[in-house]
Amino acid sequence: MGAQLTDPAEFTELESAAMTAALNAAREGFRGANPLVGAAILTDDGTIVTGHHGGAGTPHAEVDVITTAHDLGIDLSTATLLVTLEPCSHQGRTGPCTEAIRAAGIPSVIFASPDPNPLASGGGEILAEAGLTVRSGLHLEDSRALNARWLRAMNDARPFVTVKIAQSLDGAVAAADGTSQWITSQESRSHAHEIRSRVDAILVGTGTALSDDPRLNARGSDGMELEHQPRPVVLGTTELPAESFLALNPDTLQLRTHDVGEAVDRLYTEGVRHLLVEGGPRILAAFFTAGIVDEVFCYQAPLLLGQGRDSVDGLDIGTLTDALHLSLDDTEVPAVSRLGPDVLLHFVTAT
Amino acid sequence: MGAQLTDPAEFTELESAAMTAALNAAREGFRGANPLVGAAILTDDGTIVTGHHGGAGTPHAEVDVITTAHDLGIDLSTATLLVTLEPCSHQGRTGPCTEAIRAAGIPSVIFASPDPNPLASGGGEILAEAGLTVRSGLHLEDSRALNARWLRAMNDARPFVTVKIAQSLDGAVAAADGTSQWITSQESRSHAHEIRSRVDAILVGTGTALSDDPRLNARGSDGMELEHQPRPVVLGTTELPAESFLALNPDTLQLRTHDVGEAVDRLYTEGVRHLLVEGGPRILAAFFTAGIVDEVFCYQAPLLLGQGRDSVDGLDIGTLTDALHLSLDDTEVPAVSRLGPDVLLHFVTAT
Repeated sequence: MGAQLTDPAEFTELESAAMTAALNAAREGFRGANPLVGAAILTDDGTIVTGHHGGAGTPHAEVDVITTAHDLGIDLSTATLLVTLEPCSHQGRTGPCTEAIRAAGIPSVIFASPDPNPLASGGGEILAEAGLTVRSGLHLEDSRALNARWLRAMNDARPFVTVKIAQSLDGAVAAADGTSQWITSQESRSHAHEIRSRVDAILVGTGTALSDDPRLNARGSDGMELEHQPRPVVLGTTELPAESFLALNPDTLQLRTHDVGEAVDRLYTEGVRHLLVEGGPRILAAFFTAGIVDEVFCYQAPLLLGQGRDSVDGLDIGTLTDALHLSLDDTEVPAVSRLGPDVLLHFVTAT
Repeated sequence: MGAQLTDPAEFTELESAAMTAALNAAREGFRGANPLVGAAILTDDGTIVTGHHGGAGTPHAEVDVITTAHDLGIDLSTATLLVTLEPCSHQGRTGPCTEAIRAAGIPSVIFASPDPNPLASGGGEILAEAGLTVRSGLHLEDSRALNARWLRAMNDARPFVTVKIAQSLDGAVAAADGTSQWITSQESRSHAHEIRSRVDAILVGTGTALSDDPRLNARGSDGMELEHQPRPVVLGTTELPAESFLALNPDTLQLRTHDVGEAVDRLYTEGVRHLLVEGGPRILAAFFTAGIVDEVFCYQAPLLLGQGRDSVDGLDIGTLTDALHLSLDDTEVPAVSRLGPDVLLHFVTAT
């Protein structure tokens, strides 16, 4: 399709509404290794049905919405398919979407933004050559904004980085004497384990590894390991005790550096596309300072801890204009929600 | 009514549901000088309508729900009125509720908890003597929990104390160099001014008075002063500059002490029943440490400020078990909500 976008005046109000519905559906997916993508089918009589991509290994948004339309008995021979990202043309785990669209007999396709991934792009052109009416650029900015941090990670050839912060209302991760188990509730810890089960790797610093002896695995509320387990990663040069959980786990990767940029480069080479950084506070500050935090889950317990240990420790910010900005993010969960007695805040970092 | 409560087995499921509805309605009111009170009317055919007390000078919950029932044409001659607090028998600004209930011809009343205020109690007995069926104690604990902090303030003969915290996600009220205007958004500041317009007095320390030269008035989003203005109170011994807003305001009360207990005693004597404490960080810590914080509104901006100034500074907490506990509170606003780019968290302090 190249960079040739359709004149915005050529889209109808119904098409605009359908693309908005597709953008909203995209937010039902999960941030991580893949971009958020939503799709909608708009019929002659103005019916709109939506679908979305639910994460690695699940159907792409186009296939999801076509399946729904088939289930509902919708006639696709006069319908328009709208999708927030250019349909892929490559054979990934799920087959090319261009094929699925052609097989469904859909005559008209609108996508919001061209696929920036050279391995996946060109789908628009393939569909046009196959005789479909293909338009693009509808709600382009909204689609780009949705995946701005994912795009940045892809352009930088590094994993998408999610940070977990668990803290008191006054921003402490531990009391003055170091006591911290458990600041947050069972509900918060369960949620944090769900996130663990979706990432490729979890990183902590050697300080956390030594003080907490964590396993860094993903467990259900019954304590049993979940199906997908992330790879444990330890950042730093200190040797781990031979009997620690992480040293005993053959999958553990220790990155003997203090340079977080070097660390994520290395992890990308190892195939890590979604990294969860859990701490400690100085590691979090290093990732924020380097600008390689894309998403933040912040669990806040309803406590005041006073002069405890800061949850993010060592940001070099002297004045208000140097503050690090985040944006509330309604993807996957409401940006602001309750987890038992705690509050869960979900952010993406500003771009 | 004395302490004689009805055997819980004597309440029906519908009565229990109606009292739950009354408790929920109570939460639509505002915390402050008066307790939260909700009421419900339950008719023969199982219809439930609710009312609540909306703050000083507005009708009591019983009158509110009777008005609604009249508007709906509900026959009260066989109805039951349920109220979360014993109906008052005293002539306040709104007339005794016992009279309103008798005038409405309601034959049966259930209240959750006896009125702890000796000036207002005895309403149940008056209604029983007038021939009504009066029962009490239904959802007693829920009703007491709803106003636990208000009860404590009343027992201590001090104002109900609301604290405002405006901070970054990492708990800072200002950057390392002191810059802080504006950490929170216009939406947050508007909300804070609404709270100001409902309290009797606003307190800050001399440090804040000197550094910010605040007016401590309640302004609308147009910058104009709202109808009700709180009394400005400054805590501390330092003299204010003669040309400062607070020194020029003849209503300003300076309390020349560092003892917050003494301060609230003095304010109670001055007629203050609802006090808003806005800062600075050391003043907030002094109120928390003294155990005289009842409610907290915490505005959180989506920023990280690093080694800035702590929003609550000087809590003497050495270990996790000494942490100060809060509880999310759905009264008046959802406990967790968004204000533009910010998050508003609403708590009561644990009892």
